[in-house]
Amino acid sequence: MAQALKLNSTAEPYADLPQICVQLQEAKAKKGLTFDAIGKAIGHDEAWVAALFFGQAKATSEELAKLGDLLDIPAASLTAEIGENWFPRRGLGPVPPQDPLLYRLYEGVLVYGTPIKALIHEKFGDGIMSMIDCKVSVQKKPDPKGDRVLLTFDGKFLPYLRW
Amino acid sequence: MAQALKLNSTAEPYADLPQICVQLQEAKAKKGLTFDAIGKAIGHDEAWVAALFFGQAKATSEELAKLGDLLDIPAASLTAEIGENWFPRRGLGPVPPQDPLLYRLYEGVLVYGTPIKALIHEKFGDGIMSMIDCKVSVQKKPDPKGDRVLLTFDGKFLPYLRW
Amino acid sequence: MAQALKLNSTAEPYADLPQICVQLQEAKAKKGLTFDAIGKAIGHDEAWVAALFFGQAKATSEELAKLGDLLDIPAASLTAEIGENWFPRRGLGPVPPQDPLLYRLYEGVLVYGTPIKALIHEKFGDGIMSMIDCKVSVQKKPDPKGDRVLLTFDGKFLPYLRW
Amino acid sequence: MAQALKLNSTAEPYADLPQICVQLQEAKAKKGLTFDAIGKAIGHDEAWVAALFFGQAKATSEELAKLGDLLDIPAASLTAEIGENWFPRRGLGPVPPQDPLLYRLYEGVLVYGTPIKALIHEKFGDGIMSMIDCKVSVQKKPDPKGDRVLLTFDGKFLPYLRW
Amino acid sequence: MAQALKLNSTAEPYADLPQICVQLQEAKAKKGLTFDAIGKAIGHDEAWVAALFFGQAKATSEELAKLGDLLDIPAASLTAEIGENWFPRRGLGPVPPQDPLLYRLYEGVLVYGTPIKALIHEKFGDGIMSMIDCKVSVQKKPDPKGDRVLLTFDGKFLPYLRW
Amino acid sequence: MAQALKLNSTAEPYADLPQICVQLQEAKAKKGLTFDAIGKAIGHDEAWVAALFFGQAKATSEELAKLGDLLDIPAASLTAEIGENWFPRRGLGPVPPQDPLLYRLYEGVLVYGTPIKALIHEKFGDGIMSMIDCKVSVQKKPDPKGDRVLLTFDGKFLPYLRW
Amino acid sequence: MAQALKLNSTAEPYADLPQICVQLQEAKAKKGLTFDAIGKAIGHDEAWVAALFFGQAKATSEELAKLGDLLDIPAASLTAEIGENWFPRRGLGPVPPQDPLLYRLYEGVLVYGTPIKALIHEKFGDGIMSMIDCKVSVQKKPDPKGDRVLLTFDGKFLPYLRW
Amino acid sequence: MAQALKLNSTAEPYADLPQICVQLQEAKAKKGLTFDAIGKAIGHDEAWVAALFFGQAKATSEELAKLGDLLDIPAASLTAEIGENWFPRRGLGPVPPQDPLLYRLYEGVLVYGTPIKALIHEKFGDGIMSMIDCKVSVQKKPDPKGDRVLLTFDGKFLPYLRW
Amino acid sequence: MAQALKLNSTAEPYADLPQICVQLQEAKAKKGLTFDAIGKAIGHDEAWVAALFFGQAKATSEELAKLGDLLDIPAASLTAEIGENWFPRRGLGPVPPQDPLLYRLYEGVLVYGTPIKALIHEKFGDGIMSMIDCKVSVQKKPDPKGDRVLLTFDGKFLPYLRW
Amino acid sequence: MAQALKLNSTAEPYADLPQICVQLQEAKAKKGLTFDAIGKAIGHDEAWVAALFFGQAKATSEELAKLGDLLDIPAASLTAEIGENWFPRRGLGPVPPQDPLLYRLYEGVLVYGTPIKALIHEKFGDGIMSMIDCKVSVQKKPDPKGDRVLLTFDGKFLPYLRW
Repeated sequence: MAQALKLNSTAEPYADLPQICVQLQEAKAKKGLTFDAIGKAIGHDEAWVAALFFGQAKATSEELAKLGDLLDIPAASLTAEIGENWFPRRGLGPVPPQDPLLYRLYEGVLVYGTPIKALIHEKFGDGIMSMIDCKVSVQKKPDPKGDRVLLTFDGKFLPYLRW
Repeated sequence: MAQALKLNSTAEPYADLPQICVQLQEAKAKKGLTFDAIGKAIGHDEAWVAALFFGQAKATSEELAKLGDLLDIPAASLTAEIGENWFPRRGLGPVPPQDPLLYRLYEGVLVYGTPIKALIHEKFGDGIMSMIDCKVSVQKKPDPKGDRVLLTFDGKFLPYLRW
Repeated sequence: MAQALKLNSTAEPYADLPQICVQLQEAKAKKGLTFDAIGKAIGHDEAWVAALFFGQAKATSEELAKLGDLLDIPAASLTAEIGENWFPRRGLGPVPPQDPLLYRLYEGVLVYGTPIKALIHEKFGDGIMSMIDCKVSVQKKPDPKGDRVLLTFDGKFLPYLRW
Repeated sequence: MAQALKLNSTAEPYADLPQICVQLQEAKAKKGLTFDAIGKAIGHDEAWVAALFFGQAKATSEELAKLGDLLDIPAASLTAEIGENWFPRRGLGPVPPQDPLLYRLYEGVLVYGTPIKALIHEKFGDGIMSMIDCKVSVQKKPDPKGDRVLLTFDGKFLPYLRW
Repeated sequence: MAQALKLNSTAEPYADLPQICVQLQEAKAKKGLTFDAIGKAIGHDEAWVAALFFGQAKATSEELAKLGDLLDIPAASLTAEIGENWFPRRGLGPVPPQDPLLYRLYEGVLVYGTPIKALIHEKFGDGIMSMIDCKVSVQKKPDPKGDRVLLTFDGKFLPYLRW
Repeated sequence: MAQALKLNSTAEPYADLPQICVQLQEAKAKKGLTFDAIGKAIGHDEAWVAALFFGQAKATSEELAKLGDLLDIPAASLTAEIGENWFPRRGLGPVPPQDPLLYRLYEGVLVYGTPIKALIHEKFGDGIMSMIDCKVSVQKKPDPKGDRVLLTFDGKFLPYLRW
Repeated sequence: MAQALKLNSTAEPYADLPQICVQLQEAKAKKGLTFDAIGKAIGHDEAWVAALFFGQAKATSEELAKLGDLLDIPAASLTAEIGENWFPRRGLGPVPPQDPLLYRLYEGVLVYGTPIKALIHEKFGDGIMSMIDCKVSVQKKPDPKGDRVLLTFDGKFLPYLRW
Repeated sequence: MAQALKLNSTAEPYADLPQICVQLQEAKAKKGLTFDAIGKAIGHDEAWVAALFFGQAKATSEELAKLGDLLDIPAASLTAEIGENWFPRRGLGPVPPQDPLLYRLYEGVLVYGTPIKALIHEKFGDGIMSMIDCKVSVQKKPDPKGDRVLLTFDGKFLPYLRW
Repeated sequence: MAQALKLNSTAEPYADLPQICVQLQEAKAKKGLTFDAIGKAIGHDEAWVAALFFGQAKATSEELAKLGDLLDIPAASLTAEIGENWFPRRGLGPVPPQDPLLYRLYEGVLVYGTPIKALIHEKFGDGIMSMIDCKVSVQKKPDPKGDRVLLTFDGKFLPYLRW
Repeated sequence: MAQALKLNSTAEPYADLPQICVQLQEAKAKKGLTFDAIGKAIGHDEAWVAALFFGQAKATSEELAKLGDLLDIPAASLTAEIGENWFPRRGLGPVPPQDPLLYRLYEGVLVYGTPIKALIHEKFGDGIMSMIDCKVSVQKKPDPKGDRVLLTFDGKFLPYLRW
């Protein structure tokens, strides 16, 4: 699927991100690479790479160097914009999201959030599931009745401190 | 953990639910049953049972009968309040949620939503992950550095109709 | 499906409606009647009847009398609460709706609203589609790949006055 | 009605769309084509074409090529901005919409949403009407008392998964 | 149209008003009186009376006495709830209003507000139209193509103080 | 009052309008014309002209030609930006409005909206006052105690369809 | 103006206050006392007393005893509800306020807030005007053209700490 | 304090104002003038001048001429941007304000608004305090325990019209 | 300070909490105990006890037993309402908070949040400060110029997982 | 960590700040200086310096001169943009914050705000903790189980004025 891509850099979700994020997305498209291929090249899972490309994760200088090589982006641009001195200001776009794919994730919280809370408390006690010490994964699960998306959050349980 | 439980039925998330939901939760506590145990008794996964107990799923009359037996709640009360003629008005409480456990799920959408969207499109094309034809699961994953919560959404991919 | 139904009258969408609306719904369930059957008895389409049962339409005294006969509700209660001197205060519940079925309708406006606007202007010129002089219809359209809902709004075009 | 059209590309609903959408609209106006004529040329219904022109649908490369030919827009611009590597971020503008035409659609949800929900549940059971596997249509229905707009959503019913 | 009327006193717009407002409305219905007839009896315009019945205006003790006589409500109840020591806390219900009739008034502000501002400034200079020193009137204007509502606000122009 | 006028075209309410609206306002100021004078020249009421100048109404090509002549604006600019292929996206600025003049109109809805609703229902039955088939007028009414603004909405009553 | 007063204790602004506040207001009305008269009896300014009656200030036990004597309310009720162990949860009702009198105060902040900020900085430097160490006063200033309200905030200037 | 000042003209509160407002502020700084000094030069109170500099008041052509002389700004620029044909669109920035100085003013409304309303009604009856026919003043009141800000609103009482 | 206390249990922040929280606060007042004294009796810091009394923390059965003894509340009531089967639904009241004390904490986030973020990243790298594994402390720090509040959050740094 | 840094100056939190703030951050990065090192050079705590760099504090001309020397930024730029004539418009970005680090601070207010209020009242009486006369500090507290962030607010207690 190598093909030119030109994003509207002043539109959501790019306007509030380092502008190099637009270049990353465009370079990936031009090279015809998947997030998985990029992940393998820099030693990370595809979901983490996708987070990085939307300014939601932070890479090391070494990882940025590899990324620059792979995508023909000057390492200096990468390190200046999303390097050591940069820290993500996470969160993307207005809520509730209008995009139907994003909304479905949000609806998962509306409908199943309280039941999930009840189950976590039943199994773990008082505390939360970390979204910081957490791995996210998106897998394709073939199914004759229609392929399925397997979306997994694998987060550490953090018990509430009692002091 | 069998123990009396008395919920504030006019508080969130109970105020807008059929009031039998309060009785279900209180009866479960009194019997000392887990969602899993109840699920086994009525033939459903624990997460679906938790959804039912918060008015987010719909049971058949047979399932309600079994539930009434198990929890000593008159079947007539159950069928009148959450039986055939009742349909869930799903969604629980104000957004963004203030409760930290609920908020973390919501934060997962804020931070990882757009990357997840990018991955789903890369793997499946234009469409969404269904939250209707979707299974939710909460598992405990022991870990020496601290147990982990494995939260999974297994939803059908629905391609956008082109007409 | 005749069966007892007991609604939470202090919950959405009933709390802000005439309380007779709860009785109407409960009586319909007990009698096992469909909206269509009730509509035939009082001379209206099923969708209009559903609107009436949720306080979104206004019936005549004759229609209320027939309705009272059919559902065994004293006509005096009906005329006192939703009779001649009562006028609907239309609109039901917070927006955006959290319930997934309601949300999908709302999403239809988000995604297709502007294209629909463009088409109406192309075909009719400057003006709107009336939601007052408008018939709503919900039909079941059998389909081997899964039945379909045919939702139709048939509303008068109103050109903008130029004065 | 071939005539020049110059849109304010930084205003709603264009600011957050691929900027090629503005060119599409302007080219359509200049050529004096209807959405229907364009639809016939690329093999789609007029409503789908309108959705595409507002960045709410995704075309194939072949369709974009035909579109470029028809409207004298370089195919390369089209594929770079709304081609294979682009996926719609659907949803257009703030809610509630202030434009009266858009608002009437929204009002349809406020007033008739809950009655429609009741009818769908009565006819289909627990589930939703899909806005993904859904066809939208806008037709002109001549009427001596004033022409009418026939707006139809034809969406698949999706039953809630019970697991 | 004398007929019993029973309002839901815990619903909008009554919940936040003195509860005597419900009795006023119910008594008016039972007596079959119009706002105009009541206005004539107490020496005020019908629109002012309607405002009073919804807690948006303040009557004198003499006016309340006449009102009590006319509607068979004890003057003591009226003076205790909306008498000398009571002052309206004006404003009724959430905004934007969901009820279509109320919404149209609101839409008048959205669509014509800025043009009206331009005209007032052109004709009067810098200042506002008072909503305090203002008469409101609703008239029926027969028209063969459909009767019209003539809604008038007659408010004093207040120039901005320059000091 | 002919005098140069330079508007901030990126500020409310101009940012979301066709940019020709700024030119219209500036040309009107330079020519020292009133909305009434312009209205007479193109055959419309001054309030309709004011609406047109803020992108809230739609003119014909003939009217735009006259307008161009009167204000020395090339007709081609006018037809390209607000001509046949353009349709207003009505509604101006955030709500509630902060500007005191606009707010007073809005306050009229808050305070008198429900009483007006009651009067319209009493006089016309169930339905609304149209804001589409509606004339707006702003007149100066001299008064020794201070001139008054007479603001009138003359809109068709639309009864709710019963089907 | 001694006269019975019966407030709707579940309506704004009383619902979220200690319920003794309703009794205070009703007792004041029955005794026909002004805030000033009460202030003189307990040694405070009338504005502070008004704040106390709406749960926005805190009295000492001695002051409550005097208040109880004056208004014939048992001191025990006063000390239990707004005594030593009670602390105000200040703030009254939704914002923006719909009541026109309250709104005008709010509009003062919208229109003059930034100019006031500029003046305070010009005269005092970087810091704020305290609303904690602040006296509020409302005076009647007779004027032949119409009496005026003199509303004064006398608050300590607090310079920003630099550390 | 004569010193260069360079404001961010695309940031609050300047973005929505005539851009000459930025020049006014910068010129005032460069000249080292106070609002009071400017006020004396053009015959107005310092608070009114501050309002003018933030686009919240309207000057005459003569006043603008004097202002241009004093600040070395071409009168033509001033009259084109804030002259006869310009009318303020008052209101500055989002609410609630985040800036602590602005917030304190807003907090004054939250905490003391209802008590002030009660006092005004007690002293004047039913009506409001005008923010249009209103003088604002900010004075420095020396105090050994820390200087105080004396903020005064002197507004005409407007009784509600009864018609 | 032992004294009766009677809270409005339907007002914020009690309405959405287990109703035993009201009894806890009232019993504490009656006994004249400080949070510190209660903390010493049940082996916790005073701030944790305060959190427990507002339903923001979870105690063990043993702690509840001690608490019941200390405050003369039946242990059965405590265990039924806030015992093993109960889990806090944390978060208290609307945001932004109107109460000035609460608002100041919130303002701390508005003004110092981004600087604090910058410092944490500079010292710790990419991650967050946990509010789950966090101790809160409120101390009185005597100062001749006015006592000071020392508010401390002592939370674990959690580095973002990279996977 | 000296390294180039290029910030997106039109994104949060920079868009609404003096643009020199971007240069300050970029210069700091290029020089490889910590906030602490800068603070030592200009005589302030690191947290105050961080606040200054985000436009949340105000420096003297002398401090700006030292800062210019240290970071090789012309003093004239600094004094023109954040010098004597400039006053911070404090507050940074939308609320609730989406960034997880910022959100945790905000969550501290949601969860612990009311308990903190109770403790402050118990220890100090009626009043607030000042955020104006307040020192903020962020320290690293080494801990074998994971380093901790010690966040401290040291603010003056301000008792409510009683007048």
